[in-house]
Amino acid sequence: MKINELKSILQKKGADAALFYNSDPIKINPNMFYFSGYKGLGALIIPSKKPPFLITPYMELQRAKNSMIKRACSMEKKRFFESIYGIMKKNKLKIKKIAIDKNNFTLNSYRHFKKQFKKAKAIDLALDCLKLRTIKTDKEIKFLRKSCSCADKIIQKAIRNFKDFRTESEAAAFLEYETKKLGLELSFSPIVASGSNASMPHHEPLNMKIKNGFCVLDFGVKYNGYCSDITRTIYVGNPNREERETYNTLLSIQNNSINQVKNNKKCSELYDFAVKNLGHKRKYFTHGLGHGVGVEIHEMPNLTLNSKDRIKNNMVFTIEPGVYIPRKFGIRIEDTILFKNNPIVLTKTSKDLLTIN
Amino acid sequence: MKINELKSILQKKGADAALFYNSDPIKINPNMFYFSGYKGLGALIIPSKKPPFLITPYMELQRAKNSMIKRACSMEKKRFFESIYGIMKKNKLKIKKIAIDKNNFTLNSYRHFKKQFKKAKAIDLALDCLKLRTIKTDKEIKFLRKSCSCADKIIQKAIRNFKDFRTESEAAAFLEYETKKLGLELSFSPIVASGSNASMPHHEPLNMKIKNGFCVLDFGVKYNGYCSDITRTIYVGNPNREERETYNTLLSIQNNSINQVKNNKKCSELYDFAVKNLGHKRKYFTHGLGHGVGVEIHEMPNLTLNSKDRIKNNMVFTIEPGVYIPRKFGIRIEDTILFKNNPIVLTKTSKDLLTIN
Repeated sequence: MKINELKSILQKKGADAALFYNSDPIKINPNMFYFSGYKGLGALIIPSKKPPFLITPYMELQRAKNSMIKRACSMEKKRFFESIYGIMKKNKLKIKKIAIDKNNFTLNSYRHFKKQFKKAKAIDLALDCLKLRTIKTDKEIKFLRKSCSCADKIIQKAIRNFKDFRTESEAAAFLEYETKKLGLELSFSPIVASGSNASMPHHEPLNMKIKNGFCVLDFGVKYNGYCSDITRTIYVGNPNREERETYNTLLSIQNNSINQVKNNKKCSELYDFAVKNLGHKRKYFTHGLGHGVGVEIHEMPNLTLNSKDRIKNNMVFTIEPGVYIPRKFGIRIEDTILFKNNPIVLTKTSKDLLTIN
Repeated sequence: MKINELKSILQKKGADAALFYNSDPIKINPNMFYFSGYKGLGALIIPSKKPPFLITPYMELQRAKNSMIKRACSMEKKRFFESIYGIMKKNKLKIKKIAIDKNNFTLNSYRHFKKQFKKAKAIDLALDCLKLRTIKTDKEIKFLRKSCSCADKIIQKAIRNFKDFRTESEAAAFLEYETKKLGLELSFSPIVASGSNASMPHHEPLNMKIKNGFCVLDFGVKYNGYCSDITRTIYVGNPNREERETYNTLLSIQNNSINQVKNNKKCSELYDFAVKNLGHKRKYFTHGLGHGVGVEIHEMPNLTLNSKDRIKNNMVFTIEPGVYIPRKFGIRIEDTILFKNNPIVLTKTSKDLLTIN
């Protein structure tokens, strides 16, 4: 995506090329994937005035050639950055000023990089990439819509089958199975948190009987590499009046927060709005109101207290207020939202309080 | 694990404390997890002469207190490293020389770190941590054995049910489902690569009909955070004589490579041994012979051409020769091995060529 936009940025900054790398076969460099569609080992070089190319270990070459970048060459059996430097030299690329992504560049990789690129000045592209990624293209919006509709289908199936799950692990396993069966990836490891476990926003599902009370299901898939994110809280057993009220208050705050989303609105104001409406429960709301969603599950904009971000057209982000009473219970309601003149809720699963008996 | 050993290293290096951090809720910092058992957001501080403690966002505090580190305190609503610096100051810790893990420290995090820890000298602990982790404790070996036996059970179940899978995705989904149902995590996204797809060692399962021919299943789980890694190659349809021979040659190379493992043996020699035995097929063996396994799926020792590592007691690593004929087929056979005076194969699933009709 947006390789030409990146090239303009490089030219503006006087950089000869951008360099992204991935040296861990089980991780994805989000920017390398964003610009190339390639998830494997190696490096992506985007010269400011020439076509981009991938440099990969020989065993990944076939995979690289299946990506959006048509040119791929193989590393020789040398050190990682030595190989990259050699190939850039051979391609007669200027390497006086190289743009790198300092959010995805470790100190030790940089040390190896500097040994080769001795005279190159390294400038940071991290924020530029994050900003480019904030505004989605039509193609990305198509993928994100599809990602959300898949997540909807799967979470609805899980809720319909919820009675059959004995443990949190079983419910999480079901969500994963349905995801993988469709040839999709998870956005993140699903959260299934029942009873007092739900008071930990990042609880990991346990191989223990699902407890009575609120049960938080936080889930998302990746469609063509693009994430969705949805949370529903259901109730196992019969909620009392107070519990129902707490749930419905949070739900109306979530709906009203979505309705507050306007063009150019400060994200920190959206956060403030939710906090104010929580009243004396605000101290139990212990995370941000939301985050951007794209090739990463957490990206810009940040809907937090100190955020400087503003809502713009073609942004995709979550709205997810929550209430967590330590050692007692937790409730979170989350949708993925596309902003296009108006907020469009992409995750459509019902938010009415559902009880499982 | 091994906090006292780390403290000795700190004292030897004259470092006042070690600092590990994790700023991404969906990633795990392997060293932070190794020393603390904590997988969430925040920082782990290990002073050279005082007890270790965790600093986490408020919403993660309960999770942190469930870890091996009993002291945990909450970040104030400030910047990440500002909070950490403040708490270290408040605890009257000296911070003249701080040991950090430069393999898991990004350039931008370091910039923020330096703004706070202005006068501190930062030294690198990455290699020390990797080396500490190379030799497993009895407790770790227990977890790794259990991890391998779980992986065995699950992959055997998948092979028994293989006829029922229409697509690679379905087979991968089954492996994941069985993993999650037991309350375990995956070591990595399972690889199911049929027909010509198997010629790509890191092929991602596709939502397409399983092709006839060799089918590579590469899979592992995490038990208490400890990884297992096993690959079996089965045959869909009826292999011809040449295919059978290729498989059996690779299998005997794998078995013989395991038998070559001796105390103090150079890992590069093990790699050489496998390559030499592959004869004219050596050019189709495009990756290392194996890698250490622990809290990460790839750690030291490296069984590669240029490795300086040597086999020692209580190391756990894979032996996984493979043959990949571009656009045709691929075969890989992999076990996780514990070395304890002798090589002990922890993954016990049969390696006889299994045909599915």
